[in-house]
Amino acid sequence: MKYNLFCAVLFSVLSVSWALNGLGAENPEFSMREIGRVKKEVGKTEIVLKKKYQAGLQGLEDFSHVYVLYWFDRNDTPEKRATLRVHPRGNRSNPLTGVFATRSPMRPNLIALSLCEIVSVRGNVVEVRDIDALPDTPVLDLKPYLPEHTPETPRVPDWAK
Amino acid sequence: MKYNLFCAVLFSVLSVSWALNGLGAENPEFSMREIGRVKKEVGKTEIVLKKKYQAGLQGLEDFSHVYVLYWFDRNDTPEKRATLRVHPRGNRSNPLTGVFATRSPMRPNLIALSLCEIVSVRGNVVEVRDIDALPDTPVLDLKPYLPEHTPETPRVPDWAK
Repeated sequence: MKYNLFCAVLFSVLSVSWALNGLGAENPEFSMREIGRVKKEVGKTEIVLKKKYQAGLQGLEDFSHVYVLYWFDRNDTPEKRATLRVHPRGNRSNPLTGVFATRSPMRPNLIALSLCEIVSVRGNVVEVRDIDALPDTPVLDLKPYLPEHTPETPRVPDWAK
Repeated sequence: MKYNLFCAVLFSVLSVSWALNGLGAENPEFSMREIGRVKKEVGKTEIVLKKKYQAGLQGLEDFSHVYVLYWFDRNDTPEKRATLRVHPRGNRSNPLTGVFATRSPMRPNLIALSLCEIVSVRGNVVEVRDIDALPDTPVLDLKPYLPEHTPETPRVPDWAK
C-alpha cells in the first residue's frame, strides 16, 4: 500500500515535470539575477555592483552616459505582468495606451531602461547624475551610450511631448 | 522499509527546495518569457508579437522610433554569461574592455537593446527599418523612444567612434 503511494507520488512529480518541459520548448523561460543595486542618498545616486562583476566596468569611465537596465521588482505580480494597457504617466486624461508604447512599470517582462549621465566609475561603483528608479532596485545590465543611432527627427504623440 | 525510503526521498526534496529558497531570498531569480520574435525576410524586418500581447501595441504607431529589447539566446551558456571582458566588436586591436562598457552579446544577463525606426504597426506586427538581431531572436519588450533625455554632448572612447 505504501509502495503504491510512493509510486503514485513519483509518477505525479515526473508527469508535471515532463509537462512543464514540453511547455518550455515552445515558450522557454529566460532567467536573470541582479548584478547590483541602485543606492540613493541625499545628493548622490550610485549603481553598486557586486564585487564579482567589477571587471565588467573596465573602460566605462571613457563614456559620458550609460543605459541602466533594472527590474521593476515592486511590480512582480501576475496581475501587473498581465497589464497590457495603461493611462500613460498615471494620468487618466492621457489616452488608454498599450504598455509597449509607454514606459509604464507594469509590463509582461519588468525590464526598466534609463539613460544616465556618469559622474564617476570607482571600483565596483558607478555614480550617476540621477536615475528614475526606487532605492535598492535590482540592476540587470549596463550598456554604454553610443550616439551613432540617435534619431534626428523623432516623432512622439501629444501625451509624450 | 519502503515507507522509510519514501520518507527519505520526501525529506531530500524538501531540503533542497528549502535551501534553494534561502539562496533565492539573497539573490532572487528574475524570470521572463518572450513576447514575440524577430522575423527577417529580404528587404523586410518585423517584430511579430504573440497574439495575446497585441493590445500592448496600441498607440505605438504615433512614435517614429522604438527600443527593442531582446534575448541573446545563442549565448545562453554558463561560460558566455561568465564573460566579463571582451575586445569590443570582436576586434583584438580594440583594448580589452568590461562588457558593461560594450554592447557585447556576451554578458551576465543576455539582454540586447536596439533603437529602431518604425515603418508600420499592423495588428500584432511592428515593421522596423532594420535591427541588428539574428532571425527568430526572442523579443522581451518594446519601449517608445522619447527624445527628452538625449545627451547633447556625449563622450565615447576611440574604439567606439
